[in-house]
Amino acid sequence: MNASNHPPASILFIFGGSGDLNHRKLTPALYNLFLDDWLPEQFLISGIGRSQYDDESFRGHLLDGVKQFSRRKEEINGKWEAFSRHIAYLQMDGDKAEDYQKIARIVHDKTEEWGVRPHVVFYLAVAPQLVPAIASNLGKLDICADKTTSRIVVEKPFGHDLKSARELNTQLRSLFAEEQIFRIDHYLGKETVQNILMMRFANALFEPIWNRNYIDHIQITAIESVGVEGRGGYFEQSGALRDMVQNHILQILCMIAMEAPVSFEANEIRNKNLDVLNALRRYTDAEVAENAVRGQYGAGSNNGKPVLAYRDEKGVAADSNVETYAAARFFIDNWRWQGVPFFVRTGKSLHMKETHVVIQFKSPPHNTFPHEAAENWKSNRLTISIQPNMDIRIRFQVKRPGQTMKLDPVEMAFDYTAAGENAPEAYETLLLDALEGDPTLFMRGDQVEAAWEVIMPILSHWEKNKAADFPNYQPGSWGPLAADQLIEEEDRHWVNVLQSEN
Amino acid sequence: MNASNHPPASILFIFGGSGDLNHRKLTPALYNLFLDDWLPEQFLISGIGRSQYDDESFRGHLLDGVKQFSRRKEEINGKWEAFSRHIAYLQMDGDKAEDYQKIARIVHDKTEEWGVRPHVVFYLAVAPQLVPAIASNLGKLDICADKTTSRIVVEKPFGHDLKSARELNTQLRSLFAEEQIFRIDHYLGKETVQNILMMRFANALFEPIWNRNYIDHIQITAIESVGVEGRGGYFEQSGALRDMVQNHILQILCMIAMEAPVSFEANEIRNKNLDVLNALRRYTDAEVAENAVRGQYGAGSNNGKPVLAYRDEKGVAADSNVETYAAARFFIDNWRWQGVPFFVRTGKSLHMKETHVVIQFKSPPHNTFPHEAAENWKSNRLTISIQPNMDIRIRFQVKRPGQTMKLDPVEMAFDYTAAGENAPEAYETLLLDALEGDPTLFMRGDQVEAAWEVIMPILSHWEKNKAADFPNYQPGSWGPLAADQLIEEEDRHWVNVLQSEN
Repeated sequence: MNASNHPPASILFIFGGSGDLNHRKLTPALYNLFLDDWLPEQFLISGIGRSQYDDESFRGHLLDGVKQFSRRKEEINGKWEAFSRHIAYLQMDGDKAEDYQKIARIVHDKTEEWGVRPHVVFYLAVAPQLVPAIASNLGKLDICADKTTSRIVVEKPFGHDLKSARELNTQLRSLFAEEQIFRIDHYLGKETVQNILMMRFANALFEPIWNRNYIDHIQITAIESVGVEGRGGYFEQSGALRDMVQNHILQILCMIAMEAPVSFEANEIRNKNLDVLNALRRYTDAEVAENAVRGQYGAGSNNGKPVLAYRDEKGVAADSNVETYAAARFFIDNWRWQGVPFFVRTGKSLHMKETHVVIQFKSPPHNTFPHEAAENWKSNRLTISIQPNMDIRIRFQVKRPGQTMKLDPVEMAFDYTAAGENAPEAYETLLLDALEGDPTLFMRGDQVEAAWEVIMPILSHWEKNKAADFPNYQPGSWGPLAADQLIEEEDRHWVNVLQSEN
Repeated sequence: MNASNHPPASILFIFGGSGDLNHRKLTPALYNLFLDDWLPEQFLISGIGRSQYDDESFRGHLLDGVKQFSRRKEEINGKWEAFSRHIAYLQMDGDKAEDYQKIARIVHDKTEEWGVRPHVVFYLAVAPQLVPAIASNLGKLDICADKTTSRIVVEKPFGHDLKSARELNTQLRSLFAEEQIFRIDHYLGKETVQNILMMRFANALFEPIWNRNYIDHIQITAIESVGVEGRGGYFEQSGALRDMVQNHILQILCMIAMEAPVSFEANEIRNKNLDVLNALRRYTDAEVAENAVRGQYGAGSNNGKPVLAYRDEKGVAADSNVETYAAARFFIDNWRWQGVPFFVRTGKSLHMKETHVVIQFKSPPHNTFPHEAAENWKSNRLTISIQPNMDIRIRFQVKRPGQTMKLDPVEMAFDYTAAGENAPEAYETLLLDALEGDPTLFMRGDQVEAAWEVIMPILSHWEKNKAADFPNYQPGSWGPLAADQLIEEEDRHWVNVLQSEN
């Protein structure tokens, strides 16, 4: 995030090199970094896997991914050849300790060749159950003893619950220093998410009204129109709360709610972020029922396409209790936010894909205007759209032109889309930060655990109490009725930014 | 301003009926009110003048004005005939007391004809020196004894200085109750000026930051590209300070600076407005030199057209000391505004025509960001454009998309132009308010006097101390150098909204 220098000579080892994440995200991101001249001359991407590839066929496999998934497909030609020379394939078995000497040898050889000891980054793009063994074997390598030149990148999910997350942290910390461990939350790499901090702290306008005196409530929405679509087996182990709320949504919430950092140093930002997580109210079992809502979609259609009920997906139990929709009301027990509800929601097979934050301000404390002027009254609202739209909107009231005194709500907008059209994707930002050793946009171990602490009461309550009403929402809808009731009981409503009626 | 009912049966007597203001502004405005169905069925416009007209030729003269000056020239046909039946001409001599019986007779006749006693509005669209005699004669009419059904509208300038304004107020108040006296400041009828109050008090966003803690300074600009162009004789009696600052600019300043009114009742708004005028610092003679700047344009060209030096205009003294440009720094000595300078400027023959208010906010109290991120730092700014643009803009900082952390200023805008395209012109609003007896947008006597009190030290200083450097600015420029120095000595600069470099 503070990147202004280029990374040093580096080797990036990607476990799961022949897998989906590398194919769709990592190599396309690395190639974009290459095209933008961010990568050092002395740079090697070593894809690790059990599959049969030689360097050439591996490069061909990755080029195929770039062609399909890069944000700039048209620029592939020409420079791919130069880029692909930085890619090699390493066939090895992550479970076999002796195979790790192959890694040590590569580092040794490149040190000789380059005349400089490279930084080494291990990216674990593998299923979570494989992480402990790989980490354990890596921890034994001499090169990992140097805290400043080696690091390990761990993908989500980070743990399955608080207990397993703590165990994983304990294990990783026994092998690596905290500053070597880069826990990815790719939402933090999004330009519009990073911009939340710039908006709040590079402008004097917002901070004075960014508190319980002026804000009625806050909404964070991250919904999708797609269903699980074949990934039912994975989703059965996860659910919407684990998949979206514990990580992405709580991280956005932290950025919205954090106190002003003293500086943009990684640990300062993460400390302020942790303060929010620590202040998030932990619900008792009884409070969960009042403050959280779950849903699961049935069979139907969305955007004209038939949608299989979640329970009919391959790998999903016929009586699955796993939620494909989750909504909750959170409270932050500190001076700034006391009494201000944070409503969050996420779900699959919904009406549209949309991620945004809504800051709903209170009405002015006194209505100066005659009753008839205020018929169309709408209190101020700040909306930060994260995807697919990237914009910031302020709704405020003006005089309707004409002889009668009437107030009308209007919007002022700044559209980030044009400026951000060629903006780096999240993985570009995060890979570059990992190569540079900047952990600002990665989760520290204590953050991950605090986020699990917030989520655990809801998870436990839902596991103990089977949802009797599943499936309880239609594909293409806005989710279960109970989610509307959750917010409407306080005379508020969910804001769907892309729907004009709001 | 509170207009939601239509005016009662009314007669509008326009002194100066055959004059320029009626031709260009009043009748076109009245015709628009007619087209928009605001006028009552029982309505008479009685144009008063010494010229030779009968009703028919007078209507033809006014139709000519509508064709030239109405905001909707294309809709003239069809309804003009119906409208013109409400127009009559009354030839009389404003100096002759006996002629006023003609007015009484018209009111009497219409009362008979309509079966209802009409409200009577006397609009004095005449040179200021004619006002006392007309007012005095009107005051003797029985119809003016009724405070609720008769009123008198007085055009600017209201007095030539504090003394003459007080004398005029004393005279008018001896003849009419204060609530019968409607002193026009046509800026207050502009939609964008009225909207300042809506913006401030119908939104919870702005009020918390609308004070000395967050605002660095405020600018009010009302500049013109035209020169005096033949009206030199009038301008010699006035000057930029009297012509623009004493009335329009101070009124806008009051709307920007006033405390929150309890209600939108006329006297409440005017009381809050008066509070600001009373708190505006009265400069000592020595302070004037530090806080006010004057200018007069020489010969040159503007927008490719040759411009005569002000002193070469017909009716202007060859050594004229009259300012065609004025700038000043004001202070409001109250809790909200202590120490916040209000910079105002106005002038003729300048680079462009532009009226706007700039609220320049302070920088955040602490810069969280690395030095290199803030290279392009611009503090928040709210701009309210009044004419020719009608918009509201907020400048704020966002992250520049990309791998480096850089802040860039961007703008969020709400353009009132589209919504306000068919908005009523100032005179429509003010005429309708006068017919309805709503004085909110008119100046009360104490406001006018307080505004003169603010201006007098500057006027006196300038009259006593002849400007040695006149002419001191070029047509087409931004005014005299001293005006830039006035603001720049505090490391600020004039904002020219329509110039992109800001």
